Amino acid sequence: MNCEIINVGTELLLGQNVNTNARDIGEKLAAAGIECYFQTSVGDNLARIVDAIKTAADRADAIIITGGLGSTDDDLTRQAVAEALGVELVSDTGLTRVIENRIREMEKAPTDKVMRQALIPKGATAILPTLGTAGGFVIDGSNAVIATTPGVPAEMLRMLDSDIIPAFRAHLREEGSVIVSRVLKVYGMREIEVEKAVQDIIDEQSNPTVAPLIARGAVTLRISAKADSRAAAETLIARTEDRVRERLGIAVFGIDTEEMEDITGALLKETGHGIALAESITGGLVVSRLVNTPGSSAYVTGGVVAYDNEVKRSVLGVSAQSLLNHGAVSAQVAEEMAMGVRRVLNADIGLSTTGIAGPEGGSQDKPIGLTFFALSASDTLICERAVFHGSRNDIRFKASQFALNLLRLYLLDMGSPGTETA
Amino acid sequence: MNCEIINVGTELLLGQNVNTNARDIGEKLAAAGIECYFQTSVGDNLARIVDAIKTAADRADAIIITGGLGSTDDDLTRQAVAEALGVELVSDTGLTRVIENRIREMEKAPTDKVMRQALIPKGATAILPTLGTAGGFVIDGSNAVIATTPGVPAEMLRMLDSDIIPAFRAHLREEGSVIVSRVLKVYGMREIEVEKAVQDIIDEQSNPTVAPLIARGAVTLRISAKADSRAAAETLIARTEDRVRERLGIAVFGIDTEEMEDITGALLKETGHGIALAESITGGLVVSRLVNTPGSSAYVTGGVVAYDNEVKRSVLGVSAQSLLNHGAVSAQVAEEMAMGVRRVLNADIGLSTTGIAGPEGGSQDKPIGLTFFALSASDTLICERAVFHGSRNDIRFKASQFALNLLRLYLLDMGSPGTETA
Repeated sequence: MNCEIINVGTELLLGQNVNTNARDIGEKLAAAGIECYFQTSVGDNLARIVDAIKTAADRADAIIITGGLGSTDDDLTRQAVAEALGVELVSDTGLTRVIENRIREMEKAPTDKVMRQALIPKGATAILPTLGTAGGFVIDGSNAVIATTPGVPAEMLRMLDSDIIPAFRAHLREEGSVIVSRVLKVYGMREIEVEKAVQDIIDEQSNPTVAPLIARGAVTLRISAKADSRAAAETLIARTEDRVRERLGIAVFGIDTEEMEDITGALLKETGHGIALAESITGGLVVSRLVNTPGSSAYVTGGVVAYDNEVKRSVLGVSAQSLLNHGAVSAQVAEEMAMGVRRVLNADIGLSTTGIAGPEGGSQDKPIGLTFFALSASDTLICERAVFHGSRNDIRFKASQFALNLLRLYLLDMGSPGTETA
Repeated sequence: MNCEIINVGTELLLGQNVNTNARDIGEKLAAAGIECYFQTSVGDNLARIVDAIKTAADRADAIIITGGLGSTDDDLTRQAVAEALGVELVSDTGLTRVIENRIREMEKAPTDKVMRQALIPKGATAILPTLGTAGGFVIDGSNAVIATTPGVPAEMLRMLDSDIIPAFRAHLREEGSVIVSRVLKVYGMREIEVEKAVQDIIDEQSNPTVAPLIARGAVTLRISAKADSRAAAETLIARTEDRVRERLGIAVFGIDTEEMEDITGALLKETGHGIALAESITGGLVVSRLVNTPGSSAYVTGGVVAYDNEVKRSVLGVSAQSLLNHGAVSAQVAEEMAMGVRRVLNADIGLSTTGIAGPEGGSQDKPIGLTFFALSASDTLICERAVFHGSRNDIRFKASQFALNLLRLYLLDMGSPGTETA
């Protein structure tokens, strides 16, 4: 079975809202083992909604339409479905009762506009609302089963679980199979290197499938398994995940929605270390990303953004000699920044960045993107050098990712509960 | 002109990524005065991408396709466009050079897979990449102009601004008229207040049109004018913009793609002031946003992220007494932080934030979202209090916006070259 998603709402086209409904429905369909080939967003325009429904009905077995089911003149989904199927709208007694009760609770009089929400295409089964007065319906069209839900995420998710996905299953009289996916996120290898490392696994496997994917600038691998139950699919995934992790090692930094700052934060928490940042090129981005994670106050001691050489000297205690002899963008200064911030903020670990973000300030010796990193702890002083490409903000983001990864590798090496140590 | 958006990527259909690209493109098209009636997401499948392109070409004047332009076997967008238009793929010399250079920089050999990214449909104009090796192209199909960009947001946004929207405009010009838009960005007024203030201008005007628009939490007004030439359209816009600015005053902080940090940075530059940040709730976000702007090293002295009370005390010199009597989230502590960072970093202006981002830590007296701000300069000490709503990250972003606006208003009041002073 393949299902097409249509999200109705001019605000989506104008970029006023990000379409989380499409994402959430996609996730639920995949989990239910229902394939999805197309998602369409369309504005509050009758002819164009009808067009979207007809296009979808030609190529899909099922259609889910969200939005356009309220009481304003802009709400045209009911009418569009009726028109696409060539049937009339009729008042549903169940919907009528629910709407009248809700209106009474709010001590209002039921207007024609509000009661319009009781209309559904002839032959449809209503889905009663639990939140407002807008319901949904399921109707068996000649080409495809069509289900509608309001765009309000909570109501939509509930209707999907309780009515729509069961209706799709019943319609096809199919035993449900589930698709479960896991995304492995990789740092420190390029897409092509990752692909090369696991090419044989990609080629030989059909269930689970393994596919490389670039999402949000990170190199990732998606493992998807199809099985009769979620547990069975997860067992299949686990087996393949082990093989992939064996090849890629600690380059795999997280899974699914985990970001580098979450992983590094969790390791800091586990190992009980407080971190202090001394940032020049990243200008507060590293500390700001760490602070994104709830509970980070337990391990983020603080940071100094030492954009000015004078601040590097007076606040962090970088020596004037080092600044003069090596320049602000140097291993020497990175090391003194990391040691200095650790001392001044009285933290367990000091981490520093100094580099050239551009667009000005590059030279033959020190090109734009050149960055030094240092990590200082009680028994450790690590210094790394890297050159990043891209725009000023790309370089700054990549430098922050490199810094967080440096911290991650240091914490892993110290032996977190998740790793084996001698 | 109406433009359809096609986002290519199986991860979108499976609900693994939320489609921010569709939102961002929608926003940019709206700002450019180009209408959008449909957005479609489609998986990494050649036949279905071709189907999506053909469907779009039948109903739109222009198409933007994102994703599917990398070097893996899953990347099928080039091939799909060529197939939909019935033309062959040819190697582009500009793309070839860029890819070869990038590969050389990375000290690798160019493989067939990588070099496949130099292929574009015959007759297309290449858009060169600045980040990786994946470029885009624009081609004039018989039914619609088609533009492609990689799905990486930074690269996509850049290509939209520098190549794709200008190419669409050039096309519009051939149709005999140009549409020029300007977006005014407002801070400190709610949408409904802005609308009320300019309702008569919205109602009475048809060219330029004035429309409110919510983009990423900022309240904005779009002024769009249609004329025979760009200059004529701009004259029309300028006249209406003057009227709107008269109503909204300093609530208008910027235009088009200008962000609060750009505006505040420009004012710091004009007035020759160095700024130092002392951030608690915003955790480096304010300084990080200021540092986003090229040339910011001229006016960003530095910052201290004082997440820990001990850092507030030892580094910024906040008194133990104030922390004890008023708590870290208080006007008193905000003021001492601002004064402290100004002194310690030897800056002209000190700016501080302290508040409760949640999800834990709120109380009856001090709810989640409560934030104090202070600005210290030679003859000034300003303190402000605000309560923000939303998630932890919403609260942190809103607090950073408030802090930057506080700085903006202070700098405007001092009399920048752009404002009249007594």
